[in-house]
Amino acid sequence: MTVKNLKIDFQTNTTALVSQLLVGQEKYEQKFEVCAKRALINYLTVLQKSKDEPAVKKINESFDKSQQNFPLNAGQKITAERAAFLNGFAAHYLDLDDTQANLRGHPSAVIMSALFAVTTSKDEIKSFLWAFIQGVETAGKLGKVLNPKLAWRGWHTTGMIGTVAAAAAIGVYKRVNKKQLINTLSFAVTQASGLEVQSGSDGKPFNAGIAARNAVYAFLTAKSGINAEQDPFSNSRGWLKTIADLEIKPEQLIKNWLSPAEIEVPGLWFKTYPFCSAGMSSYDAARSLYAKGIRIDNCQKVIIDFPQEGDHALRYKLPRTGKEGRFSAEYIVWQVLSRGAVTAASFELLQVPQSFTALQTIFQRQHNLVNDSKDARPTEIKIMLKDGTKISKKVIYPEGSPRNEIDTRTLWSNFSKLNTEGSQRLRKLLDDELGKVIELIDM
Amino acid sequence: MTVKNLKIDFQTNTTALVSQLLVGQEKYEQKFEVCAKRALINYLTVLQKSKDEPAVKKINESFDKSQQNFPLNAGQKITAERAAFLNGFAAHYLDLDDTQANLRGHPSAVIMSALFAVTTSKDEIKSFLWAFIQGVETAGKLGKVLNPKLAWRGWHTTGMIGTVAAAAAIGVYKRVNKKQLINTLSFAVTQASGLEVQSGSDGKPFNAGIAARNAVYAFLTAKSGINAEQDPFSNSRGWLKTIADLEIKPEQLIKNWLSPAEIEVPGLWFKTYPFCSAGMSSYDAARSLYAKGIRIDNCQKVIIDFPQEGDHALRYKLPRTGKEGRFSAEYIVWQVLSRGAVTAASFELLQVPQSFTALQTIFQRQHNLVNDSKDARPTEIKIMLKDGTKISKKVIYPEGSPRNEIDTRTLWSNFSKLNTEGSQRLRKLLDDELGKVIELIDM
Repeated sequence: MTVKNLKIDFQTNTTALVSQLLVGQEKYEQKFEVCAKRALINYLTVLQKSKDEPAVKKINESFDKSQQNFPLNAGQKITAERAAFLNGFAAHYLDLDDTQANLRGHPSAVIMSALFAVTTSKDEIKSFLWAFIQGVETAGKLGKVLNPKLAWRGWHTTGMIGTVAAAAAIGVYKRVNKKQLINTLSFAVTQASGLEVQSGSDGKPFNAGIAARNAVYAFLTAKSGINAEQDPFSNSRGWLKTIADLEIKPEQLIKNWLSPAEIEVPGLWFKTYPFCSAGMSSYDAARSLYAKGIRIDNCQKVIIDFPQEGDHALRYKLPRTGKEGRFSAEYIVWQVLSRGAVTAASFELLQVPQSFTALQTIFQRQHNLVNDSKDARPTEIKIMLKDGTKISKKVIYPEGSPRNEIDTRTLWSNFSKLNTEGSQRLRKLLDDELGKVIELIDM
Repeated sequence: MTVKNLKIDFQTNTTALVSQLLVGQEKYEQKFEVCAKRALINYLTVLQKSKDEPAVKKINESFDKSQQNFPLNAGQKITAERAAFLNGFAAHYLDLDDTQANLRGHPSAVIMSALFAVTTSKDEIKSFLWAFIQGVETAGKLGKVLNPKLAWRGWHTTGMIGTVAAAAAIGVYKRVNKKQLINTLSFAVTQASGLEVQSGSDGKPFNAGIAARNAVYAFLTAKSGINAEQDPFSNSRGWLKTIADLEIKPEQLIKNWLSPAEIEVPGLWFKTYPFCSAGMSSYDAARSLYAKGIRIDNCQKVIIDFPQEGDHALRYKLPRTGKEGRFSAEYIVWQVLSRGAVTAASFELLQVPQSFTALQTIFQRQHNLVNDSKDARPTEIKIMLKDGTKISKKVIYPEGSPRNEIDTRTLWSNFSKLNTEGSQRLRKLLDDELGKVIELIDM
């Protein structure tokens, strides 16, 4: 063996990714911005909804009373990384924030929290939205090469990919140069983390919070001018190799960058109920069956049929707590067939009701469905009633998914109901498109 | 398939680990404390040495001028997590800080930085040292089950295991209850990160910094009273499974807890030169050959022989920069055989000398040695001179390793040379053992 540098693919994957981020607004299309604005309204809505949750209050308090300023860092004394962390935690706390199919996780809670944390009065809303679009693009494109392997290995994609996507977004937002962007991404991947085992506990929103925080740390460190490894996405011991044993070519990573944009296709899912988006079709199917008169007391067997691994995120068949119930198709379907709907309170119970636990034997999961599309989430509920009648309902595109989307008026109305003064200011900003982002966070 | 909870091994590995940490000082032995004090002196020495490095100054400045207070948070305005991060970065910056064989990484830079960051005037030095001992124990025991797989996968063990060890140490230091300790560890593992690909860049000390920071975040979050997953070390999608595809029994994790203690056997390695500890035997062997009159100009072939994977951390055969040269046996040996010693400046060069690059073809690595012991690091240098003479030197226990240790007087002298006033105060504290840790950090 002669002396030879162990690193042979220096600056390939990283350069490819960075070049796509630096391409600037050449690929800008008005329709991307419409998607980003919808996400912004939804983000602010869920943040407002979570602000009085006991866990959200507790974590703010623990991170120094004298520095806290929830929900957003409106110029008061808080470090940028704490702002990112606390807002990321809050935005994902109720599991009501948006999701994206390629990411298999929650883009806005992480990316927007990171962007708000570094926003100054010099920043414009157009730059904010463009940075978000590029952040979602990074998340989706990384998700395409990493999923489902990443999730199956036990990683929480929101925490893992979210860190890198948010760091990319900050780089675009702050118009850093190529060298700084490479360093920002490199300091991001070396921090990226988050275990999927936290689903069903406060560790899940914590993962969103730390991803936003990590992105801010990556940016601040790169800004200082010190240098990280210049090809952290390298196949030789790099990030993709380490976390998922993947070796990829640069073109795999950046294929079809913004054409179509990840924010548009497969697009963002907006949630109306505080449970895992993998349970949305189960919910819609159960609602339809309830409307037809089906009640849990009359059911002898309730089969919930998914595509193979379509219920990976729904890890609790018999949840112990309401929080675990957010990740249980059985708990969601049971609620609907009992009462016609889920309630927010049912997902906060420290112990699920005995009336649910007693019925566990009637539930069964199957994996016979096929899913061909990223914007579909097929689930079929097949019921056998005690009188022998069989009835089933299949849902492919649940309400809130891109093919069955919530209109902007409804999103807006959800937000307006929460905060009239804030919503008026936000509307004005979104309408004239010339406002500073910083004004949003004063609401 | 009937309904069944997917999680079947609830609270096994985690409970086992926590019980060992909560055992309190029952297992305390005076000799552990001696080791911990030596580590403390060495930690403060390397921190002082790094404080004027440009990269260390830059990163402090980037993290908010108004809040910085380097090298330690002596009561000025800085958040605990920033203190942990900045000190962790600085302590590991020169790669002069201690290492431990089971951890395969750097314990004090992470654990002590985290402990100092949460220190208040109520804390006693005895508690600090005990917490450090338990942190090193956690690091070593986790390292035993995770290594070498973790490193071979591409993870930087200092960042990964360091996060968890430092979190455990804080829990012990702050005497949290069982529930809080489980949550602290759970919030730690979900943040644990660090890529080995950062070796040779500022990303490596960055990994030490974020590990210390992550531990502080884990502690502050757990302290708030919110709950993470209660068995994050579970074999069912837990941390060990996710990062290294390992399933272990609790007894594997906690076997021989503190008997012997990891801080004593295999013990801590103290470094005298700013390069990777895997290169220490190469250095000593080269020094011995230089003393015998061997010079690089007379060498036709220089073979460096390691055990299999004994040079894993020495990833650069032909480093491009001085920083990469810290992880190159060739660069270290070349320096010694050229000039009799390495210089700190040679590891800061932006480009290695042409006189080194030109000689790359005379170097060769082999992997014929066997290593039976954790406290050994065998390396043999075999040289063929231009006149055909062969000469070789094998070193098993390099200077600074536990079997060839630096005496405390020398450690102390290294520190004293840097900071007379501080060293006098530290000596007093260490002597009477009753001082408050907070006083140390006022130096």
